[in-house]
Amino acid sequence: MTKHLSPTLKETVENIKSLDPGLFIEAQKHLDNLTKPQGSLGRVEEIAARMIAIHSPEIELPLKKGSYVFAADHGVASEAVSPYPKEVTTQMVLNFLRGGAAINVLSRAHNSEVSVIDVGVDAEFEDAPGLIRRKVRCGSKNMVHEAAMSLEETYAAMEVGLEMATAAKKKGQKLVATGEMGIGNTTPASAITALLTNQPVASVTGRGAGLDNPATQRKVATIESAIAKHFDGQGGPFDPIDVLRCVGGLEIAAIAGFVLGCARQQIAVAVDGFISTSAVAIAYAIEPKVKDYLFAGHCSVEPGHLALLSYIGIEPILSLRMRLGEGTGAVMAMPVIEAAVRVYKEMATFASAGVTSETI
Amino acid sequence: MTKHLSPTLKETVENIKSLDPGLFIEAQKHLDNLTKPQGSLGRVEEIAARMIAIHSPEIELPLKKGSYVFAADHGVASEAVSPYPKEVTTQMVLNFLRGGAAINVLSRAHNSEVSVIDVGVDAEFEDAPGLIRRKVRCGSKNMVHEAAMSLEETYAAMEVGLEMATAAKKKGQKLVATGEMGIGNTTPASAITALLTNQPVASVTGRGAGLDNPATQRKVATIESAIAKHFDGQGGPFDPIDVLRCVGGLEIAAIAGFVLGCARQQIAVAVDGFISTSAVAIAYAIEPKVKDYLFAGHCSVEPGHLALLSYIGIEPILSLRMRLGEGTGAVMAMPVIEAAVRVYKEMATFASAGVTSETI
Repeated sequence: MTKHLSPTLKETVENIKSLDPGLFIEAQKHLDNLTKPQGSLGRVEEIAARMIAIHSPEIELPLKKGSYVFAADHGVASEAVSPYPKEVTTQMVLNFLRGGAAINVLSRAHNSEVSVIDVGVDAEFEDAPGLIRRKVRCGSKNMVHEAAMSLEETYAAMEVGLEMATAAKKKGQKLVATGEMGIGNTTPASAITALLTNQPVASVTGRGAGLDNPATQRKVATIESAIAKHFDGQGGPFDPIDVLRCVGGLEIAAIAGFVLGCARQQIAVAVDGFISTSAVAIAYAIEPKVKDYLFAGHCSVEPGHLALLSYIGIEPILSLRMRLGEGTGAVMAMPVIEAAVRVYKEMATFASAGVTSETI
Repeated sequence: MTKHLSPTLKETVENIKSLDPGLFIEAQKHLDNLTKPQGSLGRVEEIAARMIAIHSPEIELPLKKGSYVFAADHGVASEAVSPYPKEVTTQMVLNFLRGGAAINVLSRAHNSEVSVIDVGVDAEFEDAPGLIRRKVRCGSKNMVHEAAMSLEETYAAMEVGLEMATAAKKKGQKLVATGEMGIGNTTPASAITALLTNQPVASVTGRGAGLDNPATQRKVATIESAIAKHFDGQGGPFDPIDVLRCVGGLEIAAIAGFVLGCARQQIAVAVDGFISTSAVAIAYAIEPKVKDYLFAGHCSVEPGHLALLSYIGIEPILSLRMRLGEGTGAVMAMPVIEAAVRVYKEMATFASAGVTSETI
């Protein structure tokens, strides 16, 4: 819950509906009639039931899918919290637009349309296919010294996410992946994790793109000082919009809005790794009903990721020691989710196949 | 190592080559030049390196893939070790041939050609597309009273597997899934696991297709009595062909031969769950070099599976609480393996994309 929401966000959040538990029971009944021992497909059955509960058994295959990569720079990058210079955010956006990054390769492999949304990169891009220009500002401010964003900027970035959810709905996408690019963005993700899950900063802060031990310790100190600056003396639970505004980032705000929008539009969301999940945790703190529409794509090696997954209460589909972001872990899980829907729709029943369902 | 091998099997085993470690180093060098922090794709990079080491960087996409489902009945099924009657083996083979089973649905989803090999079902099938009729005998004998197979039958079943590996090579398949169907076959799998990994039977025996606690305890006792019958007073390590012959099964022997054949033909193998892995463990005990060609598709909920994976030293790609067999867990992992090859072949390098590779 939050006391801050723009009218558009408020309207969205108020219209998010929980899924009827009866839909899951009905879906499981169908799964139990398929030619396999009951429950023997494990989580694949749970995934199928959730997809069917979201979309109904009439959902069409192949699934229409989209990968949404929100990009922004971070003022806190000037604190040397990443081994890569800030310019890499811009360079990687250009790489996305040329189709050369991991998210492009994986999205092509699994038939998911890539959209790259500039919500706050500190560079000007020309129009390009696949690029959606919605810059709110040229990078967030340095959270160590001031709030990363103003409240208006936070709303604006979140509303970019809402707009993308509406676009996904118009395209008929049934499953979308959250993705991000922003040099330095494990720092806001760790700050958000510490505040929302009430964990010490050191236990939810990792090496990001590859820091060594001393640099990781400095990153912890940077996050601690930012939290002290904005939340000193305050006990939790904190207002998620305050957390997002003070120690978040523009792409994180956009993903939080995107997830609220997808839940509102009843689109299934494959959540990527640590940074995406920090944004999803903000959305969940605003409205826990979003959880019904979520699949955790994978478990990252970033130590804070598990804390966020537990906080939201979602279990990762894959665990492949990935830590790249961009949406790669979410897109990698798409074939499992799509295969689950296929199992539901295409397997023979005991009756139709003439297989004995009675056990001895 | 074994003292028993037919001339054909001996020739196969002697021609299995280990992969040159230099190939992995070279592949990792290329992966390190791609536009992502080094190592940030985790196991996906390891998988890519292994596939490239097996097949060279010239491997073509999409990968040609095959699902090989070996079916047989088990004499020990008369000991009530499965909740399903033996007839279900035959019924499920017919379901496979009509395309209605989970393995069909998943193989269609992931473009893997299904072959069903009757190596010992206790029923006569007519010719049908996708069915390969290689019946060695109508089900194994009851291991509680006599050896499951004669040595000649064991060889014959293994050689069916070799033949399928040769067929896969001729079809140009680069990745194959092991699969099986045989009511009662977690019982031989548990017996093999206990003997090869030196674990107590009770700790490697599970509910199979859905036994309750008392029935699982009776299954443990059945396996213990079969092991006592054939191996009483003998200490390990046991000859893997003796283990296979006395307490194995025809489809398990065929898969063991198939894996030896695939390693010989340098085809990558996605290993399915507990029963498949028990066969792979036999192949590994005969010739450890097979390991270079293996990917563990998933980790089953059957308690013996982890013991087998540790014995061979392979780590599962997926962990979705599946316990269906048929090859479903192996086929479910295929998109991860194929995506890994795509990452290797299609991602931009730092140089080609103009992305800064130098860290600060």
